[in-house]
Amino acid sequence: MTVRVGVIGAGNIGQDHIRRLSRVLSGSRVVAISDVDTARAEQVAARLFTPGARVHRSGHDVIAHDDVEAIVVATWAPAHEEFVLAAIEHNKPVFCEKPLAPTIDACKRIVAAEMAGGRRLVQVGFMRRYDSGYRAMKVALVAGVIGAPLMVHNAHRGPSAPTTTTSDMLITDSAIHEIDLMRWLLDEELVAATVLRPRRSSRNSAELLNPQLLVLESASGVMADVEVFVNCDYGYDIRCELVGEVGTVSLGEGSDVVVRSAGQRIGRVPSDWIERFERAYDVEVQAWIDSVAAGEASGPNAWDGYAATAVAAACLESLESGQRAPVQMDARPSFY
Amino acid sequence: MTVRVGVIGAGNIGQDHIRRLSRVLSGSRVVAISDVDTARAEQVAARLFTPGARVHRSGHDVIAHDDVEAIVVATWAPAHEEFVLAAIEHNKPVFCEKPLAPTIDACKRIVAAEMAGGRRLVQVGFMRRYDSGYRAMKVALVAGVIGAPLMVHNAHRGPSAPTTTTSDMLITDSAIHEIDLMRWLLDEELVAATVLRPRRSSRNSAELLNPQLLVLESASGVMADVEVFVNCDYGYDIRCELVGEVGTVSLGEGSDVVVRSAGQRIGRVPSDWIERFERAYDVEVQAWIDSVAAGEASGPNAWDGYAATAVAAACLESLESGQRAPVQMDARPSFY
Amino acid sequence: MTVRVGVIGAGNIGQDHIRRLSRVLSGSRVVAISDVDTARAEQVAARLFTPGARVHRSGHDVIAHDDVEAIVVATWAPAHEEFVLAAIEHNKPVFCEKPLAPTIDACKRIVAAEMAGGRRLVQVGFMRRYDSGYRAMKVALVAGVIGAPLMVHNAHRGPSAPTTTTSDMLITDSAIHEIDLMRWLLDEELVAATVLRPRRSSRNSAELLNPQLLVLESASGVMADVEVFVNCDYGYDIRCELVGEVGTVSLGEGSDVVVRSAGQRIGRVPSDWIERFERAYDVEVQAWIDSVAAGEASGPNAWDGYAATAVAAACLESLESGQRAPVQMDARPSFY
Amino acid sequence: MTVRVGVIGAGNIGQDHIRRLSRVLSGSRVVAISDVDTARAEQVAARLFTPGARVHRSGHDVIAHDDVEAIVVATWAPAHEEFVLAAIEHNKPVFCEKPLAPTIDACKRIVAAEMAGGRRLVQVGFMRRYDSGYRAMKVALVAGVIGAPLMVHNAHRGPSAPTTTTSDMLITDSAIHEIDLMRWLLDEELVAATVLRPRRSSRNSAELLNPQLLVLESASGVMADVEVFVNCDYGYDIRCELVGEVGTVSLGEGSDVVVRSAGQRIGRVPSDWIERFERAYDVEVQAWIDSVAAGEASGPNAWDGYAATAVAAACLESLESGQRAPVQMDARPSFY
Repeated sequence: MTVRVGVIGAGNIGQDHIRRLSRVLSGSRVVAISDVDTARAEQVAARLFTPGARVHRSGHDVIAHDDVEAIVVATWAPAHEEFVLAAIEHNKPVFCEKPLAPTIDACKRIVAAEMAGGRRLVQVGFMRRYDSGYRAMKVALVAGVIGAPLMVHNAHRGPSAPTTTTSDMLITDSAIHEIDLMRWLLDEELVAATVLRPRRSSRNSAELLNPQLLVLESASGVMADVEVFVNCDYGYDIRCELVGEVGTVSLGEGSDVVVRSAGQRIGRVPSDWIERFERAYDVEVQAWIDSVAAGEASGPNAWDGYAATAVAAACLESLESGQRAPVQMDARPSFY
Repeated sequence: MTVRVGVIGAGNIGQDHIRRLSRVLSGSRVVAISDVDTARAEQVAARLFTPGARVHRSGHDVIAHDDVEAIVVATWAPAHEEFVLAAIEHNKPVFCEKPLAPTIDACKRIVAAEMAGGRRLVQVGFMRRYDSGYRAMKVALVAGVIGAPLMVHNAHRGPSAPTTTTSDMLITDSAIHEIDLMRWLLDEELVAATVLRPRRSSRNSAELLNPQLLVLESASGVMADVEVFVNCDYGYDIRCELVGEVGTVSLGEGSDVVVRSAGQRIGRVPSDWIERFERAYDVEVQAWIDSVAAGEASGPNAWDGYAATAVAAACLESLESGQRAPVQMDARPSFY
Repeated sequence: MTVRVGVIGAGNIGQDHIRRLSRVLSGSRVVAISDVDTARAEQVAARLFTPGARVHRSGHDVIAHDDVEAIVVATWAPAHEEFVLAAIEHNKPVFCEKPLAPTIDACKRIVAAEMAGGRRLVQVGFMRRYDSGYRAMKVALVAGVIGAPLMVHNAHRGPSAPTTTTSDMLITDSAIHEIDLMRWLLDEELVAATVLRPRRSSRNSAELLNPQLLVLESASGVMADVEVFVNCDYGYDIRCELVGEVGTVSLGEGSDVVVRSAGQRIGRVPSDWIERFERAYDVEVQAWIDSVAAGEASGPNAWDGYAATAVAAACLESLESGQRAPVQMDARPSFY
Repeated sequence: MTVRVGVIGAGNIGQDHIRRLSRVLSGSRVVAISDVDTARAEQVAARLFTPGARVHRSGHDVIAHDDVEAIVVATWAPAHEEFVLAAIEHNKPVFCEKPLAPTIDACKRIVAAEMAGGRRLVQVGFMRRYDSGYRAMKVALVAGVIGAPLMVHNAHRGPSAPTTTTSDMLITDSAIHEIDLMRWLLDEELVAATVLRPRRSSRNSAELLNPQLLVLESASGVMADVEVFVNCDYGYDIRCELVGEVGTVSLGEGSDVVVRSAGQRIGRVPSDWIERFERAYDVEVQAWIDSVAAGEASGPNAWDGYAATAVAAACLESLESGQRAPVQMDARPSFY
């Protein structure tokens, strides 16, 4: 019943998955680890309660080893394609952190390889689909509580951003989550994107276009706006309101506790994405483990990864041109 | 259409009523003012936009003057009886701040005088009955939204109390509001009271029993607890939840705005009773003016004033004895 | 101390102002009424507790009458200009319902006439500036609580719209409020507008572009989006979140009471604009009465009326062209 | 690293723990199951993904088996003592559902046996200590956010109760949770209890005293009231507000989503204790597994189980006598 997992990439997110697979979830064991920095992989293996986990010098060795049943790819994005393709080649289920790959072509190669193999093996790490709030939104929508959807209002705010953050990264690293969510919530493709430029925050360099306001359009005309603001200072704040013809459904903004003090009634805003989505990560990876054990793929697939990258590309085009950009996407094969 | 009002007592609350009658409400004019300190009355008359308002040396002169159609009594509590009785004698409507009178006997004399006069003339200043929150609670209860009432949970918290505050005053000055409200919400009399003594706050003198926890029982057995806490520091916070057989209704805790800052999601707690109930005072006194103009009494009457004082007396008895005390009250005459 | 008011227009909003001036506010009396339908004016005068109010056959007679000190213009919009200009000619303060006038040129004529007269006489009925929520937002912004403003997110939703509603009216009748508020909150002009078209609601005719998503840009680059949705079915729901560099401030969404019933925790959404903004109307008109009595104009002025119409014109242009439209506006004279 | 667990009792709660240990948590495996109804145990073993789990005819066989490292006791309460004592005898860690035992004497025998063995082996299933809300309340209290505690207001409401529910069970099955929590939050013993009787709900038999209002007093004088209401109809609603000298901290009442529909703004009330505390159960049992693996006991111990039963006994006494009842408890040995 225990799935033996190999983890490629032992940076922050990789370490977090190793901890999760080893100490939090049911039915998994990390048996192999690799990292571009092998010393780091060894430290992680030693520290993270994964007795008996081997450290390999290469991700390909992890994938190829007979003892490894399933793969987690948590390297930097440009290396995703290489390892996902290798996992497909070995016919092993692979969980790949988002994005599936940075370019549309790379995503297409993965899709093609998976289809050629004839079996769905890839799950992409869009963990928000496993958040209890977004799930309840989808349940309400599907149940008809709000009528047909017309608009979605999103905000994606983080407290601070490293100085290396570029304007593109607000789309490819941040808004990519909303891009996937809109497709999933609305159950249709996005067909166009416009990136608007509000007044820039003076708290970052003049080169960084931050915040940005994305306007995404679905095939049926639903319009989803997404505020992306990576250094809002006050916390990590994720909002989503889905507006239907007769009602709306929004993410709750509850807090474990409410404090009354000094004239104020105070709830807590999460300090970062880990606090906000830790539970979603756990549910996501448990679902993956369970699907591997059951032999049936589930969750966001390679096509979802390709589609998100295609929409992000349209956003990047609009960011540069200042114009509305149509999304360039192939028709979805029946395989997905 | 303009009701000519005489105001007796020009302290804080009297001044506030003068301002309200002169500058906020419709259909009233303050034509006469008195105060034990005549100089203060003159300053108030000069300052509060009441051109032409006479200052009398005595409240009795205010009441007796032909030009005065209706009286507001805003003196200290021990003088209420004297002026309310005089107003009744002159057959003039009188708005008396709470409490109607500090003793049961004084209240009974007012009730007897009003009945002897054969016309309802007295409105008691229980302004919370005019608060939109309490009103909506009563509407929900009467509409059957929560089923038959079983319990009420109240909290009455103020930020700070003068050093002259006594243990009795938590009942006679503060909880008196909840006593009246419970009678009004439940539409029945209270029959017993128990005052419990939680741990004292170290922020006041050891003599002051603060906070207190009152348990009031209605004729039908509904149990209402009331936390009274006069120096809670953080604000003026009034709570009420009415628990019925199939649901509950509570005062909302909204705030004009919500601020997100420094990891917090912040609403405002009112700083004092003026901020919390200013609107209720306006509605209350406008209702009084309108009722005077219409020639029909409305609102909390002398019997309500008597009943509240009788329940407060039971609370005081329990505070001293440590035991449950039955409320001693006459049967309600059909006049009320 | 009592301001004698003449009201021109006795339809819904006119009647509401007559009731307010006669029965709710302090310091005013309605002495003259007119309406295009004189019979209606007479019925209103008889019904609305305005004893002694004369009914004139023409608004010009109301304005010209010596007994009338100040004018309320509550006719349909195309007639605003005529009566506002007449009031200016008679040097009488005039409260004009929004919009000041439907066309930019008409607004300019009013501005020119008022400047020629040398005295500010016109207040425009943008009542939301008097809402306690918006006021607290402005206080927070000015106090620096959220840092420099970057974005504003608004929603303006009404439960249902008459079948006569046109696509333009979502801008000129509904969003006009947000247009004025953005100028007032941000204390700067709006310079461009884009109207986006989300999926239409199937609950109205195919000709009606509803909902709409407006994107307004301020001189300093602040971007304000406004969802306008006139038949959202579930209630009258007004939202505003102002996003600054280090925090945000939003309108609260409190409710007088919270009901718990049948698995739900329920607050109330206002049923219409009257419930939502009744208090703002009272405060607004009281402020106007007080300013008339004091002889000093206050509140939204003719320039604000002109500016709102100019921004609305840019929105209408964008609605037709599908493109971003710059706002065409004169430079603000020092008079305002 | 995998703890081999034997589960005694395969009713609802036992099955839930088997599922949790087998399919949700990390580091545990269920290797043995017993139930008074052996057929039920066999069905459960077959159904709940516990391949290889043996079914024993007796809980004592489960405890004695060499392969079993740790025990979960999930039988009915009268059998707890027998199996907990047996586990202590075998020097094996044991997780016992609440209550530790129904009588004070039984609890004392367990405490004595554990002390005689010289090693802490017993964890009692007070799962609310692992709820993120209560934990955050304790963190706020300890951090001094609200000052010294003075009062606690609790409500413990369930939607419906079986007809077999007795008045005693409101204390021993429901309020037992608040009894433990008050001790834990305040970090001191409870010394007296009074049970008040509000008006009974007409929705249950006249014999059932429901709701009840408990008043618990701590050694330092903190007063904690607890409304227990087992058929409130509208949901499973748990409240706690801790009132300190300068502020308060309460459980949040958030909801995954907020729906706006038909004039309402709607959050969800949990439907039952499973929905409300499922996560707390997971965290609790994972903490137990981790403590077993680490060889160090943690969490609510046998003394806590004894103390809760002793306070419940005082409540039962007060329920019968109608009087305040002191808690009869031994002094806490240094062992705990």
